[in-house]
Amino acid sequence: MFNQLGLIGCGLMGGSFALALKKAGLVRRVVGYSKSPSTVEKARRLGVIDVAAESALLAVSGSDIVLIAVPVAATEGTFRAIRHLVDPGVLFMDVGSTKRDVVDAARRVLKERLPSFVPAHPIAGREVAGVEHSDPQLYQGRKVILTPLQQTDPVLVQKATDVWAAIGCQVLKMTPENHDAAFAAVSHLPHLIAFAYLNAMNGQPAGKEFLQLAGPGFRDFSRIAASDPNVWRDILLSNREEVLRQSEAFRAALDAMERSMRDWNGESLEQQIQSASSSRSQWSLNAPPAKPSASR
Amino acid sequence: MFNQLGLIGCGLMGGSFALALKKAGLVRRVVGYSKSPSTVEKARRLGVIDVAAESALLAVSGSDIVLIAVPVAATEGTFRAIRHLVDPGVLFMDVGSTKRDVVDAARRVLKERLPSFVPAHPIAGREVAGVEHSDPQLYQGRKVILTPLQQTDPVLVQKATDVWAAIGCQVLKMTPENHDAAFAAVSHLPHLIAFAYLNAMNGQPAGKEFLQLAGPGFRDFSRIAASDPNVWRDILLSNREEVLRQSEAFRAALDAMERSMRDWNGESLEQQIQSASSSRSQWSLNAPPAKPSASR
Repeated sequence: MFNQLGLIGCGLMGGSFALALKKAGLVRRVVGYSKSPSTVEKARRLGVIDVAAESALLAVSGSDIVLIAVPVAATEGTFRAIRHLVDPGVLFMDVGSTKRDVVDAARRVLKERLPSFVPAHPIAGREVAGVEHSDPQLYQGRKVILTPLQQTDPVLVQKATDVWAAIGCQVLKMTPENHDAAFAAVSHLPHLIAFAYLNAMNGQPAGKEFLQLAGPGFRDFSRIAASDPNVWRDILLSNREEVLRQSEAFRAALDAMERSMRDWNGESLEQQIQSASSSRSQWSLNAPPAKPSASR
Repeated sequence: MFNQLGLIGCGLMGGSFALALKKAGLVRRVVGYSKSPSTVEKARRLGVIDVAAESALLAVSGSDIVLIAVPVAATEGTFRAIRHLVDPGVLFMDVGSTKRDVVDAARRVLKERLPSFVPAHPIAGREVAGVEHSDPQLYQGRKVILTPLQQTDPVLVQKATDVWAAIGCQVLKMTPENHDAAFAAVSHLPHLIAFAYLNAMNGQPAGKEFLQLAGPGFRDFSRIAASDPNVWRDILLSNREEVLRQSEAFRAALDAMERSMRDWNGESLEQQIQSASSSRSQWSLNAPPAKPSASR
């Protein structure tokens, strides 16, 4: 049980975390800060936060748990704003989709206060942004990845594990490097592809008409293309190397399929589809991790 | 009201059509044929068909409506098998995802009997195949595209329109060429991309571990990669030129985004994401077609 959650960034992710903690009875009050005064006021009106803070530092003051839920590129600035109150024993977390850049920023800014920061990435989200879409169930049944460093206080890592588990998450631990490589593959590249695909449609004279004929396959395939441009610009830039590496592997696989098409090589084409189809059929969202060591 | 549906191909698409017609009280009995005797027996046991026919021709005999629901590449062979019973006034339709090749095959084989054939493409499907997944609701709320030719009997086009509308479809008419260009863009390319993406994951040493971390974004983006390899080999080959053309446009859009990433050009990258995101946000599955002339 925490006394006070300091929420920095009152968007979908932060707002949902606050609501989930409240619903689970894990926090007495929530003090929220947002860059935009109207957002923080909306968050208060909606009951997502109890008290509006006038600065990030004031949201941290008196809190025993702090969630930094700002776009990845704003994380370093947030660290700077709050570093004087990053005290031992207080649990600081973020929710960023990339972890190496966040960890680098934490090292640079927090220095000897680094042990208080437990980098976190909950694998959840929606294609709508904004505190008004906050949902106490957003994290229910999802995975959350923690990427603690050698210096991170193990007591806080345990606290972080417990709080995410208490709101329904499966908690996994990885290095920031492995995290970024994995999410370039399973999240960032699919987003890049979906954006590029939509742009290819938009760039054609008949593209609009085409889209009117699209069915449920298109709907699901392209859903992530509706994601927040601000957030995704930051993610694609901050995990650039890994994303480009994954894109290269994807292009090679696409080349191979198109070669089979050009050669009228139905057998090879079918084999490639078969391989994709059977691995996707075997996948499921809630499959337990293969290596027990990776789970909490 | 039809007296007898002759169903050639007892898979998901054909079985669902049979069930939908029965449920709507549009047909007295269904005679079904499948290349595999065990499939046709299963269809009979499940009540999808009433009578098992020993050949495609026998399924046509005595039917006043015939649905050819076989993989696209098997369509021409089916036309050959049944052409002697393709009589005027009997409604023949297919459900193929490509239309130029089907229409070409119909011209070649049916010749003066061509007017009886109304090419059809219902925009529906699932990632599971087989008659056991037949669902009378599969077509409910979906679009179906008819691509009649100049020679097609207008009375049969109207009958086709009525029967699809009666089982809940929105009926649109297009030329086979426009159909294939549009579906290369909104369906075939997304499938090709999803297959290639999964193959890129499978080709990496850490691919399996990566996939265990994947979340709801991956789930939806890659759902169509689980599609039937047989069906999709045929589609990608038979609509090869249009699919390759669409893939080229996609690659150009992907190049543009990666260029912005390499150049650290956040502004340009965000613009590209914004354009994709806003067009996808505006899209909805059941938006009415823009041109009233395209609707029935």
